[in-house]
Amino acid sequence: MIVTLKKQTPKTEINRLTGLFESRGLKIHFSEGDNYIVLGLVGDATQLSERDILANEWVSNVQRVGAPYKLANRMFHPDDTVVDVGGIKIGGHEKIAVIAGPCAVESEEAIIEAAKEVKEAGAELLRGGAYKPRTSPYSFQGLGYEGILDLAKAREITGLPVVTEIMSVDHLEEFAENVDLIQIGARNMQNFDLLKEVGKLKKPVLLKRGMSATIEEWIMAAEYIMASGNPNVIFCERGIRTFEKYTRNTLDLAVIPLLKEKTHLPVIIDPSHATGDWKLIEPVALAAIAAGADGLMIEVHPHPECALSDGAQSLKPAKFAELMKKARKVANAVGRDL
Amino acid sequence: MIVTLKKQTPKTEINRLTGLFESRGLKIHFSEGDNYIVLGLVGDATQLSERDILANEWVSNVQRVGAPYKLANRMFHPDDTVVDVGGIKIGGHEKIAVIAGPCAVESEEAIIEAAKEVKEAGAELLRGGAYKPRTSPYSFQGLGYEGILDLAKAREITGLPVVTEIMSVDHLEEFAENVDLIQIGARNMQNFDLLKEVGKLKKPVLLKRGMSATIEEWIMAAEYIMASGNPNVIFCERGIRTFEKYTRNTLDLAVIPLLKEKTHLPVIIDPSHATGDWKLIEPVALAAIAAGADGLMIEVHPHPECALSDGAQSLKPAKFAELMKKARKVANAVGRDL
Amino acid sequence: MIVTLKKQTPKTEINRLTGLFESRGLKIHFSEGDNYIVLGLVGDATQLSERDILANEWVSNVQRVGAPYKLANRMFHPDDTVVDVGGIKIGGHEKIAVIAGPCAVESEEAIIEAAKEVKEAGAELLRGGAYKPRTSPYSFQGLGYEGILDLAKAREITGLPVVTEIMSVDHLEEFAENVDLIQIGARNMQNFDLLKEVGKLKKPVLLKRGMSATIEEWIMAAEYIMASGNPNVIFCERGIRTFEKYTRNTLDLAVIPLLKEKTHLPVIIDPSHATGDWKLIEPVALAAIAAGADGLMIEVHPHPECALSDGAQSLKPAKFAELMKKARKVANAVGRDL
Amino acid sequence: MIVTLKKQTPKTEINRLTGLFESRGLKIHFSEGDNYIVLGLVGDATQLSERDILANEWVSNVQRVGAPYKLANRMFHPDDTVVDVGGIKIGGHEKIAVIAGPCAVESEEAIIEAAKEVKEAGAELLRGGAYKPRTSPYSFQGLGYEGILDLAKAREITGLPVVTEIMSVDHLEEFAENVDLIQIGARNMQNFDLLKEVGKLKKPVLLKRGMSATIEEWIMAAEYIMASGNPNVIFCERGIRTFEKYTRNTLDLAVIPLLKEKTHLPVIIDPSHATGDWKLIEPVALAAIAAGADGLMIEVHPHPECALSDGAQSLKPAKFAELMKKARKVANAVGRDL
Repeated sequence: MIVTLKKQTPKTEINRLTGLFESRGLKIHFSEGDNYIVLGLVGDATQLSERDILANEWVSNVQRVGAPYKLANRMFHPDDTVVDVGGIKIGGHEKIAVIAGPCAVESEEAIIEAAKEVKEAGAELLRGGAYKPRTSPYSFQGLGYEGILDLAKAREITGLPVVTEIMSVDHLEEFAENVDLIQIGARNMQNFDLLKEVGKLKKPVLLKRGMSATIEEWIMAAEYIMASGNPNVIFCERGIRTFEKYTRNTLDLAVIPLLKEKTHLPVIIDPSHATGDWKLIEPVALAAIAAGADGLMIEVHPHPECALSDGAQSLKPAKFAELMKKARKVANAVGRDL
Repeated sequence: MIVTLKKQTPKTEINRLTGLFESRGLKIHFSEGDNYIVLGLVGDATQLSERDILANEWVSNVQRVGAPYKLANRMFHPDDTVVDVGGIKIGGHEKIAVIAGPCAVESEEAIIEAAKEVKEAGAELLRGGAYKPRTSPYSFQGLGYEGILDLAKAREITGLPVVTEIMSVDHLEEFAENVDLIQIGARNMQNFDLLKEVGKLKKPVLLKRGMSATIEEWIMAAEYIMASGNPNVIFCERGIRTFEKYTRNTLDLAVIPLLKEKTHLPVIIDPSHATGDWKLIEPVALAAIAAGADGLMIEVHPHPECALSDGAQSLKPAKFAELMKKARKVANAVGRDL
Repeated sequence: MIVTLKKQTPKTEINRLTGLFESRGLKIHFSEGDNYIVLGLVGDATQLSERDILANEWVSNVQRVGAPYKLANRMFHPDDTVVDVGGIKIGGHEKIAVIAGPCAVESEEAIIEAAKEVKEAGAELLRGGAYKPRTSPYSFQGLGYEGILDLAKAREITGLPVVTEIMSVDHLEEFAENVDLIQIGARNMQNFDLLKEVGKLKKPVLLKRGMSATIEEWIMAAEYIMASGNPNVIFCERGIRTFEKYTRNTLDLAVIPLLKEKTHLPVIIDPSHATGDWKLIEPVALAAIAAGADGLMIEVHPHPECALSDGAQSLKPAKFAELMKKARKVANAVGRDL
Repeated sequence: MIVTLKKQTPKTEINRLTGLFESRGLKIHFSEGDNYIVLGLVGDATQLSERDILANEWVSNVQRVGAPYKLANRMFHPDDTVVDVGGIKIGGHEKIAVIAGPCAVESEEAIIEAAKEVKEAGAELLRGGAYKPRTSPYSFQGLGYEGILDLAKAREITGLPVVTEIMSVDHLEEFAENVDLIQIGARNMQNFDLLKEVGKLKKPVLLKRGMSATIEEWIMAAEYIMASGNPNVIFCERGIRTFEKYTRNTLDLAVIPLLKEKTHLPVIIDPSHATGDWKLIEPVALAAIAAGADGLMIEVHPHPECALSDGAQSLKPAKFAELMKKARKVANAVGRDL
């Protein structure tokens, strides 16, 4: 960490600060410029907060040199992490995993029908929301625990492991018992209590990027889960909020190579939420594969126009099957299987 | 709500859609342009979701005409809501309320010292974080329940009602028993389960704006609390994320007149989080008052450079007392008391 | 266009407004809801501005139904536009065009060396900045007209058509005489005088997206050029500004299918500016091709660490040649040539 | 400037880099951490570009310690700059200056009428657009040179100095001869050719903030003008683009104290463009004064509902006169005159 002090900082204050840093086990390299005094802190600075140091009125700038994360950091864990989700391996050089299914679980029959269709088209995991985060209290909020049980039923019949979103620590047990991959949604990426609790399980966690989160904040959210003891974290990019109105969000595909450079965790892409428009899903999904994604999560609904939520961004099964074929070709072109 | 269909939409599909809307109690005005067919839906459309309608492939555009909120809507509740927080009235033409105190509760003695100092300078409510949302799992996470009890102790001694942030439904009881104004932080503005739970209490709620939330999303979060039965919601603007790097966030003061036009709820401003820089607090706080704020929430710490979190944005008590004097003058200039 | 009036709007005002719209050749569909009065304007509303109508105090909302652009609109021009740049065809089902070269022209020898190398690796057009937009007045500002002449020399030797950025109407003649594809940079996307002037030429124009422009604003900038008489516009996405700090910009690949749906113009992608990091160029370039891009624009520099500007985002020629091979495979996988 | 190298950087490369920096007159402080090597560059680093250094593959991070601007920097020019605009002094502790008038000059009579009305209400300068930047080529583009002459006529009659926007270097002479304060609009904040050209005049320049510009980029734009020889630059904040849809832009009032800390130049606020809504102008204008603005620029139009552009954000003269009275009270409350 590099701490820049104002030129006129009193000697006593410099000594107090260097003493403070040394007491945290850091060594200090001191250098003096024409207008500034610079302290280079050498050692593990992850427990220091830039803002706390900035509180000192003599400090004009604080710059972290290393990353603020350790467990997720590729520097200290060079090999790819491969996460096993109910027998499906995600990450490393494994086959690209495709998660598909409706936005929301609407009934047992509906989710079983959807599960059969997406399996037939080649999906390896089933998605479906039981607890739904909705902007309006007057919108459909999901079937809750009943939806979780419906998913479990669909898994029993099709063999597909299931993915669904947790919204509250209150439901942790339901998820631990019935769900194969616990999704943390964009709105809860910094729900730190929830991160700590799923961190106490061993169940794989699908960590979506917050709507306006930086990549570093996202990795820090993964670090929360890992620091609580759960190493099985998968990143899921679902687009970020931008000024654009023609799409629901803006998909950031550069995160794929970036997260793979900075961390050792798998990265999957959700083109449905990213675009909010079923017509854009296919080109964007192919792009994700070309960029090196370890998986896709796609909303598929047999009757999107009747869907209780987010039909606008759902593919019909036939269109999804077609996408799978094209995706396989692109995967092969970049040396991967799907 | 205005639904625009493509020109080539089949008659059967138009009939199916109009039937659907009519079954929800809406009347339809039909008009046909050169390139589009337009359905004007007349009646209460709050339970319809734009995106659900957009799922229909013949729909090219959906535009809500009225607001998606009802309980918070000034149109149906023309008088200002005044919220009583432990005897202090906030909103309407009441005195501007000032909430002050440290970012985090650090110890019983520290919070009592801070409480005395801010009371002396004219603050009417005491703030202090017990549960702290921190980007890094390695940063100080707050004293938790102990911090809540310390706040209660400080109230006992100074008589100041206390404000502190709730981070999880797990702690609801602690807050219901000990806290006068329950804060929902920016990261939890769309933690819908938490909103519903505080909505079941009658305790006033201070609802901070999410880091990149629109005003409409923010009002909808208030609507969640109100729809669960709690009408005592106070908005708190704390800055939004922008591209700017010289400040922590960008304070949006236009929300004050806007929220007062669209809703009947009080609005207070947090210049500390908004700027992240103690030197900017005073000018921005004065601006908030000139723009019509019903209150201020300011971080004050006797020793900011030793603070366990966010010292950078805390005023020393003497500086805070000075700000109070200037604030009073500006309040008087715009016809308010403080 | 849908104009929503407040319920209490006086009859005389409604008549005045409907008269005004009718005088512009529009027909009006009138409908009345519980809380609002709605006017549906039927006909060509491109010459109306939403904000002008909003100036009326009785108007509560204005919503455009059709697009505000005509010449760029695929609705009125269903076939793909193919732009001929010095013999290279861009758009439609043509071969994907690759533009490569250094950020800035540094000398005649340097640009000729670069031109030979990128041609050898398979590029079909040469890029190089002569006039450089730099944030600081103290940074290298480009060779100016000399750089234009150096590019022309490189074309003479290699046969590659040249692309370079115009920054001022003052230099129009230099560009008209020497350049094959005139680039409008992100900072000048809404330099309307410049758009009008290049619109008076027939030379193809490469229109970069503004740093925080919406897609609609971008299409309107193309409409400016086309309305002045020049139909040869190519869109170039180069990333938009977001909160992310790990990349220079955030590349928005959904623009490819979106622009192709809404307009008939070609779309190319600039992964260098989009990411600002040479290590990210390859995955992102492959993604662009998978998403349907008509071309790529990539910075290639034989010695990036000595580059006078933006070496950080330049590939070395060997790495570029490798990328070309991989790109060809992905292009074939999606049924295109490169 | 702090340059962080990877731990495994070869000795030869470290030597090459340090030699390069020393050749630019910088001294180097070398320090070595567990995972990184840090070079502290001491001296004037304004001519170095962070991105150029980052191009070196061994460099992992570059951090500027001082500011990249010199002429605008308060560190080297501690006294406030006061700019004289046709006899009206702006900046320092001078009276707060109010610029008012219509968005666009519509005719000689109209601008003269407006000038008289705003003068009567207390404005000291007259605004009015002659060249108008419009998103659509089909919208009213302004009267051009004729509008400039109309403004000059209005000045002749009322004595008010005039402010209007320049859009192209082609019109420089018209502005140099007829305009008292040359406005650079938000879309041209980084039109570097235009900045250089107005920098060659001595006429005061009103530099609006770009729609998504950071404060540092804005100061660098001022630095362009100053580096060309013109020290008479006034900053004008007009709101930045954010996700908010209820307002046209988000006004950032923290820029007032921030610009005054970092530079010595005056700062004025444009509440009309910032909010886009005449109902919000008054509270936001009062806030600007409370925050320390040196001036206001407000759109006033006798008949906003008939305005050829941006009537939505214009006050009627009576409402403006009322605002002036309230503004005076707030100015007095913070120790300023208006």
